[in-house]
Amino acid sequence: MTDLSHATALLTIDVGAIVANWRRLSLLVGAAETAAVVKADCYGLGMEHVAPALFEAGARSFFVACVDEGIALRRAVPGAVIFVLSGPLGGDEGEFAAHGLIPVLNSLAQITGWAAFAKKGSGAPAAALHIDTGMNRLGLAEAELERLTAKPEVLASIRPITVMSHLACADDSDSPMNAKQLVTLRRLSAALPAMPQSIAASAGIFLGRGFHLGMVRPGAALYGLNPMQGRPNPMTQVVRLQGKIAQVRDVDSPMTVGYGATHRVEGRRRLATVVVGYADGWFRSLSNRGHGMIGGVKVPVVGRVSMDLTTFDVTDVPVEQAHPGALIDLIGPGHTVDDVAAEAGTIGYEVLTALGRRYHRRWIGTEA
Amino acid sequence: MTDLSHATALLTIDVGAIVANWRRLSLLVGAAETAAVVKADCYGLGMEHVAPALFEAGARSFFVACVDEGIALRRAVPGAVIFVLSGPLGGDEGEFAAHGLIPVLNSLAQITGWAAFAKKGSGAPAAALHIDTGMNRLGLAEAELERLTAKPEVLASIRPITVMSHLACADDSDSPMNAKQLVTLRRLSAALPAMPQSIAASAGIFLGRGFHLGMVRPGAALYGLNPMQGRPNPMTQVVRLQGKIAQVRDVDSPMTVGYGATHRVEGRRRLATVVVGYADGWFRSLSNRGHGMIGGVKVPVVGRVSMDLTTFDVTDVPVEQAHPGALIDLIGPGHTVDDVAAEAGTIGYEVLTALGRRYHRRWIGTEA
Repeated sequence: MTDLSHATALLTIDVGAIVANWRRLSLLVGAAETAAVVKADCYGLGMEHVAPALFEAGARSFFVACVDEGIALRRAVPGAVIFVLSGPLGGDEGEFAAHGLIPVLNSLAQITGWAAFAKKGSGAPAAALHIDTGMNRLGLAEAELERLTAKPEVLASIRPITVMSHLACADDSDSPMNAKQLVTLRRLSAALPAMPQSIAASAGIFLGRGFHLGMVRPGAALYGLNPMQGRPNPMTQVVRLQGKIAQVRDVDSPMTVGYGATHRVEGRRRLATVVVGYADGWFRSLSNRGHGMIGGVKVPVVGRVSMDLTTFDVTDVPVEQAHPGALIDLIGPGHTVDDVAAEAGTIGYEVLTALGRRYHRRWIGTEA
Repeated sequence: MTDLSHATALLTIDVGAIVANWRRLSLLVGAAETAAVVKADCYGLGMEHVAPALFEAGARSFFVACVDEGIALRRAVPGAVIFVLSGPLGGDEGEFAAHGLIPVLNSLAQITGWAAFAKKGSGAPAAALHIDTGMNRLGLAEAELERLTAKPEVLASIRPITVMSHLACADDSDSPMNAKQLVTLRRLSAALPAMPQSIAASAGIFLGRGFHLGMVRPGAALYGLNPMQGRPNPMTQVVRLQGKIAQVRDVDSPMTVGYGATHRVEGRRRLATVVVGYADGWFRSLSNRGHGMIGGVKVPVVGRVSMDLTTFDVTDVPVEQAHPGALIDLIGPGHTVDDVAAEAGTIGYEVLTALGRRYHRRWIGTEA
């Protein structure tokens, strides 16, 4: 149990909800494999705690961004099939082999390097191929793929087991990009040996069966973010963030609040200052725009968010609920990660991955 | 030495520059004590590495935000005088005593709690008093201070050794708030026993001698941020952030880049994708707005910053300088933390405190 006496804020992560979200997606996609994207420390929610629970629930394939994350995941989940999305960056091929990490090969340069490494010893793992179908970020362009398929001996030496691509506009189900990218992946894959294909992340899953292919790769939806722009969120919420009130102040004459004196208080108001600020990933863009909740009542951020402190107007809350030591819900029931993101002018993914290191963290909903 | 082979990005922190900045401020303020604000893990730069070097240089008083940080600092710098800005939050007074942490008392409630705790045993440290002079965030209001000074036995029991306040608009030297707050602090302090006063953080130091009082509390300026809005930065830069190129792509037909297809490439361009994204604190608001540098040449961010990846247009850079494995300066010479902040629509403080956990970190400029 976490000792809350010197916590400035409490972050509760419902691992049971993450597992329930994975199970729901797994049922939805049926025959396709449901992988789990656990990069960026499970979007900031703690890979060590979350990934083993997903493995326990039946997830077998996991995606991380870089080698360091792969090594950490191998330690946490020895039995996992681990894909590293950035692939080898030059000189780190041995780390892939040592930890049994499957590189996602994104370019001819990476393929050539990996083929040379695989030739040297017998210990190189299989690989995944990433074909670009419209992101223009990572992945083989069509011309590169043609050069690769012209060299079947190189292709054989890297032992590809999966071919994947990434949708640019999946959260907009009306975008013509989606079908176009799917068609491109299927057409380009035809030149490769038969192997499972994958194009859908969280949002892509909800574009329909045609997008499920051999494997889907949800990340955001596991962590409770809404995979479908402008529609009700089908996922269960995972995160609750509570900040502790350090001080309550009654104001009864006009005055300004915080840095730059950007907020002016008029009339009789009660202000509560919480020990959470932008150094905790509670974005400065929430200044005068964000809000928290106390017992179902909205309490707006007043003034600028500072590095370690944020002030809320708690006038509408009963006095006995807003006292020093009481908690304000910054993220929680009725005020989701996506809601905070909208107030901050960003997306839920960035709110999650910015969650601060000073929060006392509690993981619930696991049997262990 | 850091092994760069599987680093996706390298963050170099010049501890020597931080020490030089502290020394410069210390010379500037003369007789006043120059403390060091090391909260939020030294604004994200690594308290364990930075605080001992500042102590070695002569800093004695250190400011942290919360008890956890105080405990960590006590471990790193056993001889430090440590002030905890949020003060006790209820039930954690014993932690202050156990680790010799000086609470900054911000309210009558905190003072009452601390007085009761101090009365119980003989081990309670002295305290600092925080008077609010215009932030309306934390600190004693004038009426509260009057109630305190009416009870000299309470005041005596908490053993105040410093009285402090915080300027709301110090970075704007023309703001009438500055002089008003200074006058208010001096007037209110007159009712207290004689003790050192403090009102200036980084920007306040540059408002002139009158603001130095007994102690100045620089943070931002130590870490190279510009303490003076709209004027040349007198501080030495501290941070260099380099992201590794995973892939270079030649584009010669019109196409879009990244999520949401927000950037359209026309003509012949070269694009380089780096394994740094908003999960690393490279803000999503830099999408289509930020830039990096290669060998003195600006390379703009194209498309949306994603969680683990950012794409730059490197067309203007010689081919041999922009290849997979090469580094792009995201923060560095000619492109400061403040510059990145301006492009991201925030302040340098938020850029520093968001610096990511996946960067390989290297501290330079220390003798040890």
